Formats: sequence, structure tokens, C-alpha cells
Amino acid sequence: KMLGRVLWTVLLVGALQSLAEASQGHISVVLLGATGDLAKKYLWQGLFQLYMDQVSSGHSFTFHGAALAALEPGQRLMFDVLKKLSCPPDEAPNRCAVLKDQFLKLSQYHQLSTAENYTALSREIEALLRQEGLKEAGRIFYFSVPPFAYTEIARHINSSCRPPPGAWLRVVLEKPFGHDLQSAQQLAAELAGFFREEEMYRVDHYLGKQAVAHILPFRDQNRQFLDPIWNRHHVERVEIVLKETVDAKGRTSFYEQYGVIRDVLQNHLTEALMFLIMELPANVSRAEEVLQHKLQSFQSLWGLERNSAVLGQYQAYASQVQEELQQAQDYVSTTPTFAGVLIHSDSLRWEGVPFLLTSGKALDERVGYARVLFKNRAYCTQSETLRDAGHSQCKAKQIIFYFGHGALNTPAVLVSRNLFRPVMPKDSWKEAVAQSDLRVFGQPLSDYYVYSPVKERDAYSVLISNIYHGRKDFFITTENLLASWGFWTPLLDSISRQPLRLYPGGVENQHLLDFEMVSGGLAFALAEPEELLNPPRQMPSDYKAIQSKYRQSPLVSAWSEDLISRLASDMEEAALRSVARSGQFHLALSGGSSPAVLFQRLARHHYAFPWKHTHIWLVDERCVPLTDSESNFFGLHRHLLQSVRVPYFNIHPMPVHLNRRLCVEEDRGAELYAKDIVALVANASFDLVLLGVGTDGHTASLFPRSESGLEGAPAVVLTESPVKPHQRMSLNLPLINKARQVFVLVLGKGKHDITTLLSRVGHEPRKWPISGVSPSSGQLVWYVDYDALLG
Amino acid sequence: KMLGRVLWTVLLVGALQSLAEASQGHISVVLLGATGDLAKKYLWQGLFQLYMDQVSSGHSFTFHGAALAALEPGQRLMFDVLKKLSCPPDEAPNRCAVLKDQFLKLSQYHQLSTAENYTALSREIEALLRQEGLKEAGRIFYFSVPPFAYTEIARHINSSCRPPPGAWLRVVLEKPFGHDLQSAQQLAAELAGFFREEEMYRVDHYLGKQAVAHILPFRDQNRQFLDPIWNRHHVERVEIVLKETVDAKGRTSFYEQYGVIRDVLQNHLTEALMFLIMELPANVSRAEEVLQHKLQSFQSLWGLERNSAVLGQYQAYASQVQEELQQAQDYVSTTPTFAGVLIHSDSLRWEGVPFLLTSGKALDERVGYARVLFKNRAYCTQSETLRDAGHSQCKAKQIIFYFGHGALNTPAVLVSRNLFRPVMPKDSWKEAVAQSDLRVFGQPLSDYYVYSPVKERDAYSVLISNIYHGRKDFFITTENLLASWGFWTPLLDSISRQPLRLYPGGVENQHLLDFEMVSGGLAFALAEPEELLNPPRQMPSDYKAIQSKYRQSPLVSAWSEDLISRLASDMEEAALRSVARSGQFHLALSGGSSPAVLFQRLARHHYAFPWKHTHIWLVDERCVPLTDSESNFFGLHRHLLQSVRVPYFNIHPMPVHLNRRLCVEEDRGAELYAKDIVALVANASFDLVLLGVGTDGHTASLFPRSESGLEGAPAVVLTESPVKPHQRMSLNLPLINKARQVFVLVLGKGKHDITTLLSRVGHEPRKWPISGVSPSSGQLVWYVDYDALLG
Repeated sequence: KMLGRVLWTVLLVGALQSLAEASQGHISVVLLGATGDLAKKYLWQGLFQLYMDQVSSGHSFTFHGAALAALEPGQRLMFDVLKKLSCPPDEAPNRCAVLKDQFLKLSQYHQLSTAENYTALSREIEALLRQEGLKEAGRIFYFSVPPFAYTEIARHINSSCRPPPGAWLRVVLEKPFGHDLQSAQQLAAELAGFFREEEMYRVDHYLGKQAVAHILPFRDQNRQFLDPIWNRHHVERVEIVLKETVDAKGRTSFYEQYGVIRDVLQNHLTEALMFLIMELPANVSRAEEVLQHKLQSFQSLWGLERNSAVLGQYQAYASQVQEELQQAQDYVSTTPTFAGVLIHSDSLRWEGVPFLLTSGKALDERVGYARVLFKNRAYCTQSETLRDAGHSQCKAKQIIFYFGHGALNTPAVLVSRNLFRPVMPKDSWKEAVAQSDLRVFGQPLSDYYVYSPVKERDAYSVLISNIYHGRKDFFITTENLLASWGFWTPLLDSISRQPLRLYPGGVENQHLLDFEMVSGGLAFALAEPEELLNPPRQMPSDYKAIQSKYRQSPLVSAWSEDLISRLASDMEEAALRSVARSGQFHLALSGGSSPAVLFQRLARHHYAFPWKHTHIWLVDERCVPLTDSESNFFGLHRHLLQSVRVPYFNIHPMPVHLNRRLCVEEDRGAELYAKDIVALVANASFDLVLLGVGTDGHTASLFPRSESGLEGAPAVVLTESPVKPHQRMSLNLPLINKARQVFVLVLGKGKHDITTLLSRVGHEPRKWPISGVSPSSGQLVWYVDYDALLG
Repeated sequence: KMLGRVLWTVLLVGALQSLAEASQGHISVVLLGATGDLAKKYLWQGLFQLYMDQVSSGHSFTFHGAALAALEPGQRLMFDVLKKLSCPPDEAPNRCAVLKDQFLKLSQYHQLSTAENYTALSREIEALLRQEGLKEAGRIFYFSVPPFAYTEIARHINSSCRPPPGAWLRVVLEKPFGHDLQSAQQLAAELAGFFREEEMYRVDHYLGKQAVAHILPFRDQNRQFLDPIWNRHHVERVEIVLKETVDAKGRTSFYEQYGVIRDVLQNHLTEALMFLIMELPANVSRAEEVLQHKLQSFQSLWGLERNSAVLGQYQAYASQVQEELQQAQDYVSTTPTFAGVLIHSDSLRWEGVPFLLTSGKALDERVGYARVLFKNRAYCTQSETLRDAGHSQCKAKQIIFYFGHGALNTPAVLVSRNLFRPVMPKDSWKEAVAQSDLRVFGQPLSDYYVYSPVKERDAYSVLISNIYHGRKDFFITTENLLASWGFWTPLLDSISRQPLRLYPGGVENQHLLDFEMVSGGLAFALAEPEELLNPPRQMPSDYKAIQSKYRQSPLVSAWSEDLISRLASDMEEAALRSVARSGQFHLALSGGSSPAVLFQRLARHHYAFPWKHTHIWLVDERCVPLTDSESNFFGLHRHLLQSVRVPYFNIHPMPVHLNRRLCVEEDRGAELYAKDIVALVANASFDLVLLGVGTDGHTASLFPRSESGLEGAPAVVLTESPVKPHQRMSLNLPLINKARQVFVLVLGKGKHDITTLLSRVGHEPRKWPISGVSPSSGQLVWYVDYDALLG
């Protein structure tokens, strides 16, 4: 061992000599997993490329391959890889040969297994630099190892291998970074114990693909053309697609746990989408601005629902899993190998524009692209037969970032000729000569300006260069990662119940996987009788028969999502009936988290709701300013009011904040609200009151043993809650009971006990205020989900 | 004369005999202009058709042709026409021959010129009916005469020719019904002096075209398919098109006064549009409901602006006018012969969907249609080359009501096969066999379900039948007419300044008349250097140089429309700057009519405006409830707030209505508003205050010699206006002068005097409060239109 090290030091000194006076300092690159597949295929080549590019940058380099294997075999394995490094076609062969020789001399294998190994590596680097009089600029640790090994390696690096003060540390991490929000948070928290945020470079290799990496620069350099059209008024849809012909064979042990959404959509396609839809920072090369805008973009996305996705599985997958994972013949996999997902943003720029993300294995072609299709804004007066084929404004207008493969078989940027001639950086992108017979995206290639890279670079070369340059915007920050998992996890949780469509694979799929946007979600275009691959289980529709009585009133019950959807429809119906009858609909709403989902549903799926004629009242309010996130009204505004067009005059928040103070008796807010109700609502009888139930049996802000509100006047009261904020304003029970309709929504296992209890007790409002809800001439309907009803 | 009458009576009695016991009563049809072109071509044939259809209805008929010509020649002329009446192919020849013979016997010519003539006609009818023992059901007077003759005829009918009580009167009127709102109102008022609204049947013969007449029934019978998709979420655009190959040659004396918009768009195309976009009544055969919904539809339309239209004129038109109207060689016509117009509705159903109306003479083909193009909601996973041509969901989806001519050469209803198979009434529409090689609207005809009428009927036959049936929904009511003119007149007024594009005519037009939707309006797709046909005149852009100082502050001046557009852009810029600086934009707005146009512009054209971060304050308010149409806030809400997404919390109406009473001193509303401003606006310095100027020099609600508000505290005051409503609330001058920017908008000739006066006076706020506006450290900009500036 000692011999090897000495020998290497001698070799190294020779190679470093010419750079002894390098002013920028020395960079040590440590590749963990130096003999693994990824390293063999991309990483060493990327490091060699970095060396070729930066040999004259003023930095000196050493490259340290590391693995668990002992020195001898490890060294041999690694140098077998290094010897095969290729010279890129755009590099002069002589120069490349010399540089390759140097690169080999600068590279060394290390066994990194125990804490001592790490300490030794660090000492070696320090000794070498001292010996050569080199200043240390930084250390790069590239984790090309399985995730289970992360924590230990991270601990060793942190405790034994940090560079001295003044030099930086960059650790490069490869996915997977967890498989849902919780596991990602856990992993992130662990890593945060060892590394600072700015030290971590999480790789999504799509961000290194040339066409993806060029999205932001393209948007920046073509602002003059894009500024007026890069918005919901002009963009019809955005498609981000990665189609594969291969299947998961041989990889099912990984794939069965991840599936297509975690494998491709949550990371690659989402990242590409963010580059397309984020607000463009003033300076796109300022990593911090880019990352911040990207994060904001995540926040503008609507939450995904079960019907946001269509899912499929190629037919052979099941048997592949059975074989590779040694499962029984009747084992049924619910892992999707195909997904189409509809995403919406509620930003002013993108509101209403569908973003379609699609990926799958065993499809008819291998291709990846991000496509922005513009609305047809033109009318061509001349009849079609007479239209000039060339630049007609009636032809489709689109911009495509073509990741590679497919008909073009190269990364490319395509811009419809009737749109504009794009500005492209001449040193890195060249205009391609159109193959006239090729058709892409519904048009002959000659309809586009087509650009391809001057030098094709693989993603890892691009990324390694960006690690060197500290361009964190090419990597996934912790915030970014958690935002993405936060966005995808609810869908992943809910689709376990979603049926998978089986498809034969390849061209045989025909139209089986075509899908459509239908009432805010997606559905396969072709109906299929044998839709259900999942084992027979209780589907929501099976339960629909459970619909009887609860506390002597009608009961509607279903899984929560179906229940909410039914409740929203019933509310719309009530509203339409009421407007038809009286021209108005007076709706009193409760706060809380269950209604939030309902409000979103109303805002997004019920555009026939007569909002213009609806008056919105509050059932109860917390004594906080309306702009406080604890305010019921604030939640109502956020989830519903800001998305629909209720006239300002018809919105009636409770006056808990008068004279710039909260719920002061003498400001008589409760009295004022009662007067408003009397003045505007006929007979003070709301058309519909929506209530919830607390685990203690409270409803509205009427709590057990409340001193007011349970009977008699006044109609609006100040009450005390056992939980913060204590002060509340609430409609009283008699006023609620005057309503034409009262709907009570009860969701979740947490409500099972109170639901069971209430089914047995009578009218005891002092103990359980909800039991006092009993409309004098109106109708009461209970909406209780299976979790609350059945536990 | 007497002989003719006796003879006719004898003949008539014979023909009527068989119906002597008809229980439904007798109908007399009087065709005024019985020997004119329209009568010859369509009306007599239509009446004959009515007779054939209704001969067994229980009604008896007589037909009275009338004109100014004397009995002898008139009779001869008329019977020449009648003898040529044709038997429709779907009628048994024998039956038709018998009926034609009867029809001729039941028809008589009358000279109707003097009052006596009318009296005589009426007596004759009465005598005949008495003699035959027939009850009178009603009288139809069909005005097929030039409009200048209307009034006199109407007077005669009203005074001398009304049927006896119990029988109805129906007068049928042919267009033109005025040439703008004012003339239409005048004509309507005149007619209203003679006829009740329900007696008038204004003909727009497009409503009788089979494909147009079937729009509502189609929507009704296909509710199950259309209900989910007949809205802005699914419809991409609506096109209503009437292209003609003929030009105006020989008709320029008419055409030169009307032009394509009055001739085709204001009536035919608008009516077809209304049928497409109106809310569908529960019962589409209830005329009243249909008419009411149609009227509501008009009210939902955005006002047209100059840039809502593109206009053209075929090149030969000028010389045709010069020749036919004997104009000088240098006479320039500004009459458009081609127009494309973009219409928007702000109904919840159609918001954002472009309605394109297009018509022109001397185009490449003769065709008319109303086309609803749906959004492509599908994603086809299979690559294009493998897609099945038949029913792919990725193909265009459209519904077309084809009026006639064009490639199909028949009225038709087309529905894309990937949409649904429509329900069509089998007795009147039959499925057509597709000519496989024909392409229409971008697709082979085989992609559609195609239906054509079982019996082709010309529009007048359809309409005459509907007059008989009293179906007023097939005609233009006065309200409908005025709503249409009210909608079109502002455009007609403003386009006199719009340049016309010259086009050669026919296929030579190529792409010259293609147009595009650009920033809320239309523009020709191809730029053209020689764009200006109009004589060189002062165009708005010529004036842009006038931009100097007014009262020592910057002045922006232009024609009002350009001025508003500039002001809106400047406001957006101020807002974006402010949000970039402080995260917020505090904007104080004035009420009144000038801002209304500005507000609409902001709502419709400035979607990048950072509304989410904008706080809206009022400069002044009238002491009326906020929901009163006199309220400044109400106007602001109507024109701006209901269309943009300002958070509820950021909207700050003045508290003029506290404790359910108006501007009572002790409610301290002014004080409260001042406190809110101090609490929310940094340094109580608004980012932008928008002011107007009254003819008396008032601004905000600070009037000359006001006792408060012109100096010192308090910041918000109650004031007295010389005009109603007298009580006002207003920001005071010192508060206004603390603003970062103050924009003053002055529009219209009515403001010329005060504008001139103010240019000369100094700081005299007690005389002219506006002269006290002088921001202490902010910027003041005047936006004054040419009318106000130059008079």
C-alpha cells in the first residue's frame, strides 16, 4: 500500500509541476463509487472533459477515485476505465493525448471504507499541497453510491475530510432523494447534519441536457419576442414528454418501488416545466434569483388530485416482477409504468393553461421534449385550398425544446417560422438544415427554425462543469426538492386506488394511451371494459349504497374525495335553485381545513356556479385580523374567493376587527353583523349553511357549555374557544336553524369517535352543540366520509 | 275599378266556400310592394307556400297585393308574377296545381296610395267576411317598400286598416332599420306611434335560413352533449363568416352609405352569434324566453373599440362609386367592403373566447357559416405517423352551421365525428353521404357527421310561416334592434379614422386579408407599406409630438383612445416599479365616466398589472350605498374590480355607509379612512393618485370655496357638492400632494374651457381646487386629450 502511495505522489508531483505557481488554488475531486456503472459510463469522461476545459484556468486538479474495494483490485479496475476515456471529436487529437496522459497521472485510487481511510485521504491531500506550495481552493466529493451509503460517507467527510478554512467543499449527490415528502425530509435533515446547504449539489441529470439547460437562456435572449406571448393569453398548452421504448426488465427491483412518476415526472419533467413557467429573473445567470423564482413557481401550482393523472402498466411488467422479485403468480403490481399528469398554475401568467407531463416505458418511440403550443390567433380569409403553405399565420405556432432521440436524433430547439426567428448564441447553437421530408409535431420540419448544439455534450459533462463553476441553479436545492415532493406526494398517496390501464407495449398500444382533459382532470380517451387491473377491492363506487339516515336526517357517505365532489355539486344545485327562485343565494360558510378542499373544488370545477348572485357569509370567525392566516375568512379568500367572481358587495366577512381592534364588546361587531343579515337576507333565513363538527362536538364557534349562542338572542355572539385563538364570533344556533338547508361536513378518522357518539345521543346542545342543529323548517343533510363513519 | 272588385268577390266566394265553416277564422295578408323585386323573387312564393302548408289548418286566407300603381296595370303585373309561382319538388303536382289555382283566386291587387284606399281595403275585407260568415283572425301587412315610405303606410294602417277587436294585426318590416343607434331609435319611436311592439315583425332574413334557424333547436336537442362543453373551458373560438364573390357594382348608391358592417355584420352575423352564445332557455320554442335571453347576451358583450376591427375595400370600388354616383376622380370612399371584427363577452360562460365576425365582397368564394371550434383537450401518446386517421381525439373538434353555397352548396350542420353523433329531427334534417374527397375546415368531410335539410326552404318561406305562427323569436324586436345598434354604433363612429386595406378582389387577395388577434384587438397579419387608403389626414400618431408642459408639469396629449391607452400603460409601469421597490402599490382612484374607459382598458389589456399586490383606495365618494349605481366605488367595481384579481383585503372603499346610515359625522367614517391610510400606506404617501377635473375646476370631491379639504387637517373630509348627491367624502389636498405620483386625466370638448383657463392661472385652490394639486416631492403628469386641449 505504502509503495503505491509513494509512487503516486512522485507521479503527481511531476504532473503538477507546471502548475506550481497556479494562483487560483488546487481542487481535489473525489469520486465515490469510482468503479461503478455511472462512473464508468459518464462521470470519469465528464471529469476528463472538465480537466481539458479548465487545464489553463489557473486551477490545479487531482482526481481521487474511491470505492470499498482494496487498493490493488480497485486501482486496476479504475485504471481500466480511465484508459478507455475518449477524446471528443472537437478536441485536437495531439492535445487530447497529452492531456489524457496528464489526467491519468493526476488520478489515484483510494479505498474509502473506514473513518481512518477518510482521515488518511485528507492528510495526503494536505501533505501534497504543502509539499508543492499550492493553496487549496476546494474539494468536490461526488457520491456515485447507493443512497443507503450516503449517511456514513457524509459523516466521514464532515468529520475527517473537510478542507481547511478558506477552501470550499462541494458534495454531489445522485438521486433518488427519498421516495415521498417524508422520506425526502428525513434524508435532507440527515444530510443537513453534515453539510451546509450551499455545499450540496443534488444532481438531476436532465438539467445538464443541452436543450433543457438552454430553456432559460432562450427565454432570456428572446425576451423581445416572448414577453408579449409567454402567458395564458397566447399559450394553449405546454407538453413535457419522455417516451421510452425500453421496459423495466432487469430493473424491476428498483422500478417496482418507484414507478414512472417518481422515476421521471417528479424530477426530470417537473424541472423542465419549472424552467418554462417560472417568472424570468432579471439576470438568468444569477443562481440565487433563478432558484428563488423556481421555488415561487412551485408555490403557484394547484394541488394534484386523483383525477389529475392517467396511469398505465405494460402487460409484461407483472410477469417480469414475478420473475425478478420471485413473487407468486397471483402477485399484482400496482406500479405505473406510464403516466399522464395534468398540472395547473394559478399564477396570473398561466392560469388556465394546461401543463401535460407524460412518460412511459414500452411505448412506440424513444423521444423527449418540452413543447409550448401557442393559440391560433389568426383568421385566414382566403379559403384553405388557396393558402400559401409557407408562412401562413393560420398554421400552428410552437416552440419545442427537443431533448434528443426521436425523429431528429439530436438535441434541438425548434421555433415555428410564423412565430419569430430566435436569437441563439452562435458559439453553442447552429442552425440545422431541414430534412424536408420529415414531419414533427404535425408540421414539416421546414416550417421551423431548427437549431442544434455546435458541440453535443452529455449531461454529466455539462453538470460537472457547472459544479466546478458553482452554478447551483443547475442542481436541486433542498427547498426545491421538498417543494417538488410536497407537490407530488399527495398524488402518489392517492393513486394507489387509481386503476391502471394495461397496454401491450410498442406500436401495439395504438390509441390505448391517448388521454383527454375532462372536467379539470385527465381520462383515457378510449373507454375499456377490462379497465381494472387492480385486485378487486372496495372502490368508492361500491359504497355508494350506504346512504341512509344519520340522526334522523339524510346521510351522504363516500371516500372523502368523492364526498367533497358530491357536496360541491349539491351546493351548486342549491345555489342554482335559489337564484332561480329569488335571484340570490345566501351562503354561510365555516372555516377550517375540510372546507378548504371543498372550496378549491368549487373554485375549479363549478364554473356554472352563480357566484355573481351569491352572498357569502361567515358562520364563525376567529378574533384575528382578516389578513391573518388564522382567520377563517383568510382561508376562504385564499381557497375560494380569489378564484371566483363574487361581487365585492356580496362578501360579508365578520366584523371582528373594528376601529382597528379585535372583538371589543363595545364596538358591537356581532350586533352589526346581525343587522346586516336582517337587512339583506330575507327572514334572516340563509339559503344554505355549511357546518363542521369538532371532536368535542362543537360546531360553528359554539363550544360545549358555551354561555351564549346555544339558545335565544342575540343572533350573532362572541364566544370563547378552549383552543387558541380563544375569542370567536359565531352565528347562534337559532339563526342556523332558520336556514333553508344545513349541510354538515365531517371528514377523517379523527372524527370517528364523535361521529359514533353523536349517532347515539339526542338533542343536547349544551353538551354537544352540533346536536342542537335542527332546522325548524329547512333541511339538514350529513356529509360524512368513510373514515369518520367507519373509522 | 268597380267591376274588378265585384268579379274578385265572386271568385273569392267560390274559393272560400269550402272553408265557410272554418273555426279558426280568417287571415288577410296584405303585401305592400306586391310587384317589387323582393316580392317577385321570394315573397309571393313564400305566401303560396304558406297557403299550401296551412290550407287545412282551419284558417281561411285572402292575399292582397298592393302598390301605388293603378288597378289595371298593377293587377296585370301582379298576376304575371303569380302565374309563375312554382310547385316545390316535395309537393304532389296535382295537389299543387289545384292549390295554385285556388291561391290565384284568393289573391287580389289593390292600389294603396291615399287614406281612402286603405279605408276601402278594410271595408272590403269586413264586407267579405260578413258575407261569408267568417270570423276575422288577423291581418298581416308585409312592408316590401323603401324605408322612406314606412311612416305614411304605418299611419294609414293604424288609422284605417286595423282589424276589429279580437283579431290581431301583424306588420312585417324589412331592413334597413336605421343606420346607427340614433336613427334606429328615431325610426322605432315613429313606428311605436302606430303599432304596438307585439304587432311588429322586423325581418332579418338570416333568421329564416335553415341552418341559422336550427342553431337553437340543435343546442336544445343536444343539451346532453353540449352542456359540458359549450363554454370558455372548451370552446376555442367562434367564427361567423359571410364571404361573397360579387362586388357592390350597380348598388353603390346604397352600399356607399352602409358598408359591410351595417349591411351584414350588425344584423345577419350578429343575430347568428346571439343564437350561438345566448344562455339556452328552458324552452326554446317560447319566443319570449328566447328574446329575453338574446337581449341579455347583448348586454354581456364588451364594447367595441377602434382596434376591434380590420377593414378593407376592394380596389375597383372607388371607381365604381365615382361612376355610379358621379363623383369626381379624386373622390375617396371610406366605406369598408370587408371587415373582420373581434367580439368578446364577459359572461362567465364565454369570458375570453374570441368571436370573430367576418364578411366581405369580392372575395375568393361565396360561403356563409357559423363555426364553433373546440379546444384540443387530448394528448395522443402514439406518434403521429401511427395515429389512426378515423376518430383520433387529437383531431380538430368543431360544429359548423353551414348557411349555404361554398363547397357543400347546401345548408348543413356538421359535427366532428370525434365529438358526438348529434340528435337531429329526422323529419327535417337527413344525414348526408360524405363526398370523400372534399375537405372543409381543415379536414376531410368524412371526419364529420353531416346533415342537410330534408326539404330546402328559402328563408322567406320559413319567415312567412313564422309570421303566421306568431313566432316573434324569428324576428328582431325593438329592444333587440336597439341593443344591436347600441353595440355597433361606437365602432362605426370610430372607424372613420381607421385605415382601409385595399385588396384586388377574388383569389388575388391571397393573404392580404388574413388577420390576427393582437393585444385585445385585430390587425392584418401581413404588414403593407401602402396601408393608408384614406386621404392624408391628421392621424393620432402625427400628434405625438405635442408633449410638453402644462402648468409647469409634463403633459401627455393624444386623441382620447390613444391617451387612455398611454395612461393605462404608464399606470402599469408605475405599479410594476412600485411593487419591485416595496412589494406593494397603493393606488387612489377617482370616479366618473372618463376613468371608466381607463378602468376597462386596464382590466382587458394589462394582464401583467400586479393586481395581487395592489391596494385600491378611493379619492372621493358620494354619500350613497356602495351598491348604488351613483357610487364611485360601484363604477370602479363594475368596470375594473370585478374583472381583475385584487385581494379582498386590498380593496378600500370609503366608509360612507356605517351603521347602515350615510356619512353621519358621528360615525367618523372620514377619520376611520384616514386611520386606515396611515396604518397601511407608508408615510401616508400613495404611490399613485388618479384625479379628474370638473368644469368648475373641482378635483376629487373638493369644490371651489370648500370649507374643508383644501388645506390643513384632517386628511379625509366630508364635503358638499353643488350637484347631487350633495354629500361627499374626499381625500384632502395635502394628502393628495404627499403622493409619489399624481396623474390628472382630462377628456372631452366640455373640458376645453377649464383646460384653457387653468393653463393661465396660478395656485388658487379656493377658486379652482385642482390648481392646488402640486405634489410636495412627487411627480404630477397631465393627460389631456385633444378635444379638451384644442377644443
